[in-house]
Amino acid sequence: MTMTTPDVLGRARDLFEPAARQAVASLFSDLRLAAEYHFGWVDADGRPTPGGGKGIRPALAVLGAEAAGGSAADGVPVAVAVELIHNFSLLHDDIIDDDRERRHRPTVWALFGVGDAIIAGDALQTLAFEVLLAEPGPRRVDAARRLGRATQDMITGQAMDMAFDGRDLVSLRECEEMEGYKTGALLAYSVGTGAVLAGADSPTVTSLERYGHHLGLAFQAVDDVLGIWGDPEVTGKPAGNDLRERKKSVPVAIAMDGGGVAATRLVELFAADVTDAGVTEAAALLQAAGAREATIELARGHLGTALDALAAVDLVASAQLELEELARFVVERQH
Amino acid sequence: MTMTTPDVLGRARDLFEPAARQAVASLFSDLRLAAEYHFGWVDADGRPTPGGGKGIRPALAVLGAEAAGGSAADGVPVAVAVELIHNFSLLHDDIIDDDRERRHRPTVWALFGVGDAIIAGDALQTLAFEVLLAEPGPRRVDAARRLGRATQDMITGQAMDMAFDGRDLVSLRECEEMEGYKTGALLAYSVGTGAVLAGADSPTVTSLERYGHHLGLAFQAVDDVLGIWGDPEVTGKPAGNDLRERKKSVPVAIAMDGGGVAATRLVELFAADVTDAGVTEAAALLQAAGAREATIELARGHLGTALDALAAVDLVASAQLELEELARFVVERQH
Repeated sequence: MTMTTPDVLGRARDLFEPAARQAVASLFSDLRLAAEYHFGWVDADGRPTPGGGKGIRPALAVLGAEAAGGSAADGVPVAVAVELIHNFSLLHDDIIDDDRERRHRPTVWALFGVGDAIIAGDALQTLAFEVLLAEPGPRRVDAARRLGRATQDMITGQAMDMAFDGRDLVSLRECEEMEGYKTGALLAYSVGTGAVLAGADSPTVTSLERYGHHLGLAFQAVDDVLGIWGDPEVTGKPAGNDLRERKKSVPVAIAMDGGGVAATRLVELFAADVTDAGVTEAAALLQAAGAREATIELARGHLGTALDALAAVDLVASAQLELEELARFVVERQH
Repeated sequence: MTMTTPDVLGRARDLFEPAARQAVASLFSDLRLAAEYHFGWVDADGRPTPGGGKGIRPALAVLGAEAAGGSAADGVPVAVAVELIHNFSLLHDDIIDDDRERRHRPTVWALFGVGDAIIAGDALQTLAFEVLLAEPGPRRVDAARRLGRATQDMITGQAMDMAFDGRDLVSLRECEEMEGYKTGALLAYSVGTGAVLAGADSPTVTSLERYGHHLGLAFQAVDDVLGIWGDPEVTGKPAGNDLRERKKSVPVAIAMDGGGVAATRLVELFAADVTDAGVTEAAALLQAAGAREATIELARGHLGTALDALAAVDLVASAQLELEELARFVVERQH
C-alpha cells in the first residue's frame, strides 16, 4: 500500500531547515562539513546538494505546538534540537553498527574517518542544548531539561540493543522495551515538548507523549518489516539487511517467542556465519511463522493506541487531523 | 621540583565524588559500568577500587564558588557537570588517538569495545546537562547555557588538534589557540561558573574565567613537557609518547617556529615512520633548540597572567590563596 506524503512533512521542513542550517553553521569548519554532509545538505566537498531526511521528528514538534494552540514557529526550537540529537545518534550508530552507507551515500565515518564522525556527533549533541538555552524563559528551560531525559533514554535504548547482540534469545517484551527507549523517547519528546513551547498543560503534554511513544513503536515495527522484506531501492540497504546484521528485531523476537522448530532453527542461523542462503532461509522461516503479519498487526495496534491518546484530550482540530494522518502514513509505508 | 598536593584537591573530591557517583548511578547498567570503570571507581567486573583522577576541575569549581563568597557546596553541581564533560571527552579521545592505556589501566574502548566507549561518553555528556538542569533557578540555567558553550569550544579544540595531524608545520600561535579551546575553555568554565552558582557579578566571573583560561594554557604546556620528557612511572605513558604519536605540541611548535636545521629535521622525523631512534633524536633536537626551557617559561608566563587576573577583582582572600596555590602546583609539577 502506498500513501501520499503528508503535507506537514514539507511544511515542517520549510520552517525547520533554515533554523537547523543556521545552528549547524555556527560549528567549527571541519565539524560543520561533516554535519552538513550527514544532513544531506552538501556533498563531501561542501557543494550544496538536494536531499535530507524524512523529517518526522520536526513535523511532530511543529504539530505538537499547533495542537496546543500555538503557532508552527513555536515548535521550531524543539524541531531543531530533536533533529540534532537524532542525527548525533545516527552518526555514532553508523560507527557502532559498521554501516558504510546511509541514504545511498557513504556514511560520515566511512568518508571522513571514525574520529571525525565521533566528534561531529558530539558537537551536534551539545548544539541541541545550546539551541534550546539560547533564549531565556521557563518553557525553553523545561524543553532543555526534557531533552536531557529523552536523550538519556535514547542512549539507554542503544545500550540495550547492543546488549541483545550478545544473546541467543530476545523476547518481544524486551524488544519493545528497547525500542520504546531507542525510538519512542525522542518521538514522544518531539510532539510533547513542541506543545510545552506553546504553553500546553500537563495532561495535554502527557497525552501527546503517549501518542509519540506508540507512534515510535509502530514506526519501529514497520522499519523492522522493511529491514527484512523491504525493497532495497526504497530502503537504501541490501535486501534482508537486518538479518545479515543479526538484528534481534520485532519479527525475530515474535518468532523466538513462538518457540518450536522455527525458533530453534532461527537461533541456529543467528549463531552461524552469515550467508545469502541463511538470510533467505531466515526470512522465509519468519514469514512462515507468521512473524511478518504479526509485526504489521502490532504496528496497527500501536497506531490505534496513539490515535486514542490524541482523542483523550482537547486539541486544535486541524493539528489533530494532521497528527492522525502522519501516524497512518508512518504505519502504512510500503511493506 | 616536587610540591605538596594542595589540600583543596582532597577537599573538593570529598564533596564532588559522592554527587558524581550518585549521578553516574542513574545510568543504565552497561553504561554505568563503563563510566564507573573509566572514573577509576571500579574494576572491569564492577568491584570497587581505590583511585580516580587529579580532580583539578572540581577543585576549581569549588574554589570559584568560595572566591565569590559562596560555600564550597554551591560549586558542586558545576564540579560534577564539568567532570562528566571532561571524562566524556577522554572516553572519545582515547578511541580517536588509539590509546590503549590510561592511568596504568586499559582504556574503556580497549576493554569493553569501541561501541561501548562511544555510548558511555554520549551518556556522560547528556548527564552533565541533566545534573545542572535537575534543579530550577536562573543560576543553574545560566550554568547549563555556559556549559553548552564551553563544551562546544572543547570539541572545536579537539577538531583543530585532529586537523594538525594532517599538516607538516604548526605555529605556536595556532597551537595555543587550539589548546585554549581544548583545555582552557573547560578550566575557565569550572572556576567562572562555580562563581556563577554563588551569585558572582559579571566582572568577577570574567576575571576568574581569564584565570582559568591561562591556567589551562599553563597546564597544557607542562603536560606537553611531561609528554616528551616525563617519567613513564609518573605519567603512565611510555617515554616520548607525544613524539611517538607525532603530536604537534607546544615544544614542537616552538622548535618549528624557530626554523633552521632543527625545524627541517623535525619535519622530516615527523613525516617518517616512528622508530625508537627517531623519538630519541627528536627529543634531543627539541632540547638543544631550547624548546623544553621555552615551554616551561611559557607556562610560567601564563601562570603570571592567571595570578594577575585573580588580583584584578575583589575575591574572598582564603579562596584566592588556594587558587594561587593550585595554579603554582599545576605549573610546578615534576618536569
